[in-house]
Amino acid sequence: MSWKELLLGKPIPNDEAEEEKIGPLTGIPVLGLDALASAAYGPEAALTILLVLGTGGIRYIGPLVIVIAALLLIVQFSYRQTIAAYPDGGGSYSVARANLGTKPALLAAAALALDYVLNVAVAISAGVGALVSAVPVLFPHMLALCLVLLGLLTLVNLRGVRTAGMLFMLPTYLFVACLGITIVVGLVKLVGSAGHPTPVVPPPRLPAGTATVSLWLLMRAFASGCTAMTGVEAVSNGVPLFREPRVQGAQRTLSSIVGTLVLLLAGVALMCHAYGIGATPPGQAGFQSVLSQMVSAVMGRGVFYYVTIAAIVAVLCLSANTSFADFPRLCRVLALDGNLPASFAHSGRRLVFSTGIIILSLLAGVLLVVFGGVTDHLIPLFAVGAFLAFTLSQLGMVAHWRKSTAPRARHYRVVNGTGAVATALTLGVVAVSKFLEGAWLTFVFIPLAYALFRANRRHYVKVARATETHQPMRVTPVTAPVVVVPIKRLDLVAEKGLQFALSISPEVYVVQVHAQPQESEEIGSNWKSLVEAPLRAAGLPVPKLVVLASTYRQVIDPLLGYVRKLAGQHPDRFIAVLVPELIEHRWYHYLLRSHTATLLKMMLLFRGGPRVVVINAPWYLRERRRHGAGAATRRPESSLRGLRFRKQASDSP
Amino acid sequence: MSWKELLLGKPIPNDEAEEEKIGPLTGIPVLGLDALASAAYGPEAALTILLVLGTGGIRYIGPLVIVIAALLLIVQFSYRQTIAAYPDGGGSYSVARANLGTKPALLAAAALALDYVLNVAVAISAGVGALVSAVPVLFPHMLALCLVLLGLLTLVNLRGVRTAGMLFMLPTYLFVACLGITIVVGLVKLVGSAGHPTPVVPPPRLPAGTATVSLWLLMRAFASGCTAMTGVEAVSNGVPLFREPRVQGAQRTLSSIVGTLVLLLAGVALMCHAYGIGATPPGQAGFQSVLSQMVSAVMGRGVFYYVTIAAIVAVLCLSANTSFADFPRLCRVLALDGNLPASFAHSGRRLVFSTGIIILSLLAGVLLVVFGGVTDHLIPLFAVGAFLAFTLSQLGMVAHWRKSTAPRARHYRVVNGTGAVATALTLGVVAVSKFLEGAWLTFVFIPLAYALFRANRRHYVKVARATETHQPMRVTPVTAPVVVVPIKRLDLVAEKGLQFALSISPEVYVVQVHAQPQESEEIGSNWKSLVEAPLRAAGLPVPKLVVLASTYRQVIDPLLGYVRKLAGQHPDRFIAVLVPELIEHRWYHYLLRSHTATLLKMMLLFRGGPRVVVINAPWYLRERRRHGAGAATRRPESSLRGLRFRKQASDSP
Repeated sequence: MSWKELLLGKPIPNDEAEEEKIGPLTGIPVLGLDALASAAYGPEAALTILLVLGTGGIRYIGPLVIVIAALLLIVQFSYRQTIAAYPDGGGSYSVARANLGTKPALLAAAALALDYVLNVAVAISAGVGALVSAVPVLFPHMLALCLVLLGLLTLVNLRGVRTAGMLFMLPTYLFVACLGITIVVGLVKLVGSAGHPTPVVPPPRLPAGTATVSLWLLMRAFASGCTAMTGVEAVSNGVPLFREPRVQGAQRTLSSIVGTLVLLLAGVALMCHAYGIGATPPGQAGFQSVLSQMVSAVMGRGVFYYVTIAAIVAVLCLSANTSFADFPRLCRVLALDGNLPASFAHSGRRLVFSTGIIILSLLAGVLLVVFGGVTDHLIPLFAVGAFLAFTLSQLGMVAHWRKSTAPRARHYRVVNGTGAVATALTLGVVAVSKFLEGAWLTFVFIPLAYALFRANRRHYVKVARATETHQPMRVTPVTAPVVVVPIKRLDLVAEKGLQFALSISPEVYVVQVHAQPQESEEIGSNWKSLVEAPLRAAGLPVPKLVVLASTYRQVIDPLLGYVRKLAGQHPDRFIAVLVPELIEHRWYHYLLRSHTATLLKMMLLFRGGPRVVVINAPWYLRERRRHGAGAATRRPESSLRGLRFRKQASDSP
Repeated sequence: MSWKELLLGKPIPNDEAEEEKIGPLTGIPVLGLDALASAAYGPEAALTILLVLGTGGIRYIGPLVIVIAALLLIVQFSYRQTIAAYPDGGGSYSVARANLGTKPALLAAAALALDYVLNVAVAISAGVGALVSAVPVLFPHMLALCLVLLGLLTLVNLRGVRTAGMLFMLPTYLFVACLGITIVVGLVKLVGSAGHPTPVVPPPRLPAGTATVSLWLLMRAFASGCTAMTGVEAVSNGVPLFREPRVQGAQRTLSSIVGTLVLLLAGVALMCHAYGIGATPPGQAGFQSVLSQMVSAVMGRGVFYYVTIAAIVAVLCLSANTSFADFPRLCRVLALDGNLPASFAHSGRRLVFSTGIIILSLLAGVLLVVFGGVTDHLIPLFAVGAFLAFTLSQLGMVAHWRKSTAPRARHYRVVNGTGAVATALTLGVVAVSKFLEGAWLTFVFIPLAYALFRANRRHYVKVARATETHQPMRVTPVTAPVVVVPIKRLDLVAEKGLQFALSISPEVYVVQVHAQPQESEEIGSNWKSLVEAPLRAAGLPVPKLVVLASTYRQVIDPLLGYVRKLAGQHPDRFIAVLVPELIEHRWYHYLLRSHTATLLKMMLLFRGGPRVVVINAPWYLRERRRHGAGAATRRPESSLRGLRFRKQASDSP
């Protein structure tokens, strides 16, 4: 399996688990990329809506960013409490489950899960989109590039959290540093020029306004700008990723991320004011992103410009990674509660929850293929999911503080209550203003995911109820089972089957079905000499030969009927049916085989009733060479000595 | 299963097999459609090549048809002998195998198999093509129509040979009758007008000639016309379909088919001469088939014309059916020799070889999908396969007569020798002149099929050699196996597993793997009170509890390692591993499950070595309701009475 180790790395033993954990320095790239990348598209989205106001629109970006920053700080405050109260991760889901009940919790989980899947698809296609605008010759391969990038991200994440964090550190800090330097230099120039700096490269002139300002327009701009807030819940979902003391580590990471994001957003807004930077109409000739205009205006188009743009593209792409860190954690928490299959809760060879990573990758891959690698239409869906989760999480914290006896609980409750009202209002604004643009899809997918969780849970409970017991074991009388050995002819496979059958019970029925007349060798005449005689001579019980006719040429139906008849005749015993399994050298030999044995096993298990047990005995094609053939030629025909199986190389531990 | 009976009919018992057989009257539609339909496209194909000669080209159709008719009669003579000598069917394959050896036989089989698959695809798309030219609104649904027709043919054939024969009788005889009447009326008019009849509807004027006659042109016209000969081998493959005396029935059917075909070809050629009918350029506006021109010229465009055209379209479509009758028979003969998996030799619920029918349908379906329902390009491939089979079959007959002591063997040998030379020459002409048009594909597919047959045979021989024995059974000492019961927790599933394990062996190891720390319930403390104590009290052997740690969080690897260690410690005993199987209510519940159990079974069988046996015990979710839960509540906690399984409704035979 060396290719597996090459791709995924050596398996990590349990006792090295702590070393795989992360601190704030790696935590920011792993869990903060989604949030930080928002600085690149949040202001841009708001300014695009304001475009119809012409140059006059730019003045509204400041107040909008202030409102968004205030919301961010409230949400951050709320999630800091969540991290402390629910250090096992799960974020909004855990809060809602503990305080609001299962249904709101699953609603939050569904919203978050949808968000994570969307984020992967949108981030990858945004990154590839930026790459393709720079290198247009790649345009026809856009979908392929998206899928390759998705595959690489999946692989990196399957290798473990620490690998991902180390790999993504450089672009993340480069992105923050470049934008930070630009903003600081811009501030210096702003102060030095008494508020009227001269741009190095002037931004393109905005088209004349075609509308006057209205509340509806500002609400839409605000809703668009709110995409800047997505990704803030990530840290609270991933608390167990941090090394101890994990609560402090996670809180510090969250505060660093939100603090950096608020500063970046404020800086961008200020530069837009100072240099008169607005959005350019997207999808048209001459389009230039707001950040590109800002860096050009402040720093000019030198090396710094290109490094910054490269960092922005990289961060956009890699912001998909936040989902890879969180989605599997969310699924794990859901699985531990029975809302998803148990395998989501199993950590794999590199200590990550591989099932969740692979499912996330598959779902995002489907989205990318369905939308051909262009997922702009999915962006509005984001904000709905995020704000639904924010609101439920804060409502949960309100309930949490109500029950709490902590000294400042009352105080905290007011903050979270305010936050809940604010995010709920925002959710309303976003849902209404983005409904036709695609937000309606969330009203389809969130209920679907919710129903899936519920179905899983029902099934989980049903199975648990059906199987659990706290009683001492019921002791049945130890009567050997009735063993049925279906055979085609008297060959070594049948011989081995009989040997095993006789080792577990003295009551063995050998059954031959005469399905295809031209195929069935008559066993009758050889039975006495080849089977009965040697067994009798050794003083062993003799199996009974049963030949079943098949009116309709089926093999399985007559056998199943016979087995059920036996079960009826022995109401207090197990009926064990021995089905040999030919083990081939090469997998493709299985294509050449008839699959009667597989079908027989399934039918016996599903239709045989609770007392019919299937015994699957392997017959290796190499078996004869090793112990059969040699013995057969060396052995005198009449000898009946008890030949033992030889110890085989493959059996040594 | 009532939907199955509705679609496929009730299963036919073995003792009604003879009633499913056919005589010449049904034999002609079942096995002759392919050959008879050739009358519709053979002359057309030759005349299309002659088109470049203008009106002057028509005079060559007579001589060409005479040569083709002579070849037909020789081939017919040869196959009559084949039918008598090889009444078990298999045609060219059986002849070649008996007289020329395995390799030429498999070559013939590969050629025939390819032909049958091509015939299904081409016939269906030709029929649908004719239908779509009549009803152009169906054009966008051409592929769908092809697949629906393919599905219907598959279904009809799965219902049995007799159903197919009865269903196809009407169009077949209508086709022969309509063309026959047209030719007879044409002959009368020809004689009545002293060789210069006036057409009721004059055929379109031919374009002026653009080339002069050459040997190469005539050879190409001949090669195209030879497609009229495909389908002649069908009867010899299907001899076992006929009721006794089957040889006479099959011979009479073959002669009727070839006789009718020769008369139709001759009649069509004569009418072309008399009325000056040539081909119209295919795929261009004003295209009209030769038969349509002929019927219009002789009979006018009344009701008779439309009935005839409908019959032609139906016969083109249904000529695919010959393949459905023969391909499964060919596969059966190949399977009996080990060249294909055994299931091809099993006759299904309606006494037909269902596997062959389904595989044929799948292969033809793939061809139709790949070519989008337009398969004109595949037509040249036909003739190569057919003439390869003809040649090998006649060479086989030459060898057959050489060994024979029959009175006229020498005489027959000359006829077959002449036939072999003639068909081999034709094969050469067809292969050369059609190579670039697509015949090269046969040089890819025939070797592929050949290699598949050989691989199957090798595998079949290997398995047979590895398993067969004619020695008396080797009597091993009857030592109970070592039983391993992997469990997750102490629940009813584990209880049932333990009950079965103790019923087959006193030496039982209960193994728990600590893979995911948060999941594993500690069994240790309950083990003594819930399992050991009651067993000891009942005087039964007590299983040993083994807890395995898992460094890398896998379940299967540690278990497999432990089982192999046990196998090493007990070199003369079977190791039986008991894997419970949860039987769900609904199939989609299996999607919600982790598939560790399935994977474990596979790994144990494939990597456990020859002495590791897997026992699969079902646990039905309804089981508890029926006997578990009730018992658990009624039973006093300390009671240890031997509770017996209740007889269940589903167990009664």
